[in-house]
Amino acid sequence: MITLYDLLLQDDRRASPYCWRIKHVLKHKGLAWRDEPVGFTEKEKIAFAQSNTVPVLHDGQTVVKDSWAIARHLDAAYPDKKLFPDEAALAYAQFVAGWVDTAVQPALFPIIVGDLYGRVRKEDQPYFAETRGKRLGTTDFAGFQAKARDKGVPAFRAVLEPARRMLRERPFLGGTQPAYPDFALIGAFLWARVASPLELLEADDPVAAWRERMLDLHDGMGRKAKAA
Amino acid sequence: MITLYDLLLQDDRRASPYCWRIKHVLKHKGLAWRDEPVGFTEKEKIAFAQSNTVPVLHDGQTVVKDSWAIARHLDAAYPDKKLFPDEAALAYAQFVAGWVDTAVQPALFPIIVGDLYGRVRKEDQPYFAETRGKRLGTTDFAGFQAKARDKGVPAFRAVLEPARRMLRERPFLGGTQPAYPDFALIGAFLWARVASPLELLEADDPVAAWRERMLDLHDGMGRKAKAA
Repeated sequence: MITLYDLLLQDDRRASPYCWRIKHVLKHKGLAWRDEPVGFTEKEKIAFAQSNTVPVLHDGQTVVKDSWAIARHLDAAYPDKKLFPDEAALAYAQFVAGWVDTAVQPALFPIIVGDLYGRVRKEDQPYFAETRGKRLGTTDFAGFQAKARDKGVPAFRAVLEPARRMLRERPFLGGTQPAYPDFALIGAFLWARVASPLELLEADDPVAAWRERMLDLHDGMGRKAKAA
Repeated sequence: MITLYDLLLQDDRRASPYCWRIKHVLKHKGLAWRDEPVGFTEKEKIAFAQSNTVPVLHDGQTVVKDSWAIARHLDAAYPDKKLFPDEAALAYAQFVAGWVDTAVQPALFPIIVGDLYGRVRKEDQPYFAETRGKRLGTTDFAGFQAKARDKGVPAFRAVLEPARRMLRERPFLGGTQPAYPDFALIGAFLWARVASPLELLEADDPVAAWRERMLDLHDGMGRKAKAA
C-alpha cells in the first residue's frame, strides 16, 4: 500500500509541483496509491517522516521524503517501465529537475504568487503570508504579481528556451515517450494552472503543444485537476 | 584528414566556446585534426561551408557547420567512445548544450565583454564593436562590463545551480567520465578564461573543482590554452 502526502489548497486543489512529479511517476509505473492531503499548517501529518514539506511517500515499511529521493525509490522498488535505466537517463532527469527547481519555478513564482495566495486555504493564509512575505519583502501578493508580470512573463518564456529547442525536434523531453524530465517540467506548469488563469505561453510555442500532450497523459490526469 | 576552422583572437588566442566543445570531442575520440584559424573578419575562409560562423569541420568529403551538427557527425562517423549511445545520452547532451547557449553564456557575456574586446585582433575590433555594440546598446565595452559585474557575477553563479547540484554527487556532468554536457559547459569557461582574468567562481564551489578536472583533460589542453 502506497500513500502519497500531497499539498492541499482550497476546494481540494492540488498545486505542489513536486507532488505532481511523483503522481506522474506513480501513473507511469501503473501504481495505485492512497491520497493524503496536507494543508500548509498541518505539518504534524508528515512529522513521522521527519519532513517539513511534501511530498512524503509511505510505501509499506518504507518512508521517503523529497521528490527526487521518492522517484529513485519508486524506480528501484518497481523496476517495470524504468525511469532511470542507465547513468545518462539518471543524469538527464536530475539535471532537468534541478533546472526546473532553480530556474523555471523561481521565474514562475513572482508572476503567479497573488493568484496562489488566493487559492490557499483560509486557515493557511497567515502561514503563506509569513513565509512567502519574507521571501518577497511584501505581503501585497496581488500587487507584487501585477507589477512582476510585464517583465516576468517574457523572462519566464526565455528561461524555457532549452526545453523549447528539444521540443522542436521530439514530442517529449524524454524523446518519443514522456520521462522524468517531462514530469519535472509539467509539475511547474500544473502548479501554475491550478493556481492562476494567467496564460504563460504563446499559442505557437512548441512548449505549449507539449503541455497539451502532457495534460492528456493518464486519461487526462493533469487536465482534470481542478484549475484556476 | 579533419580540418577544424576555429575563431582567432590576438596572439593566437582561441576563445570560441563552440569550437572548444568540438576540440574536446575530437580529443575524446582520439582524433587528430588540422587547425585553421579564422579571424572575425575572415568569413571568406568558411564561405565554402555556407557558414557565417565557426566551428566548421571539413572531414574528408564532408563539410559540417554548427557545433551540435559537428558533434553528431563525429559520433556517427567515429563510433569509438560513443558520446550518444542512446536516446537519453543524446537528449541530455542537447539539453545541457541548449542551457549553456541560452542561459550560461548570456549570463557570462556582459561581465567579460570588455576583456573580450581587448583580446580581439586589432583588425577585427571594428567588426566586434559594430555587432556586439548593437546587442548591448553601447560600444563602451569596458564601462559596460564594470557596471555589469556587481549583479552579474552573482547572477552567473546562480545560473550554474543545476550543474552545481549534479557536481556535488559525481566528478563530471557525464557521471564518472566526462561527456558532451561537460564539453559544452567547459567551452563557456574557456571562452571566459582565454579572454578575461575575472575569477568567476568561489573557491569552494563544486563547479570550480570540476573546472580544474576539465582543464586537466587531454594533457591539460584547456589549461595550456593561452589565457588572459
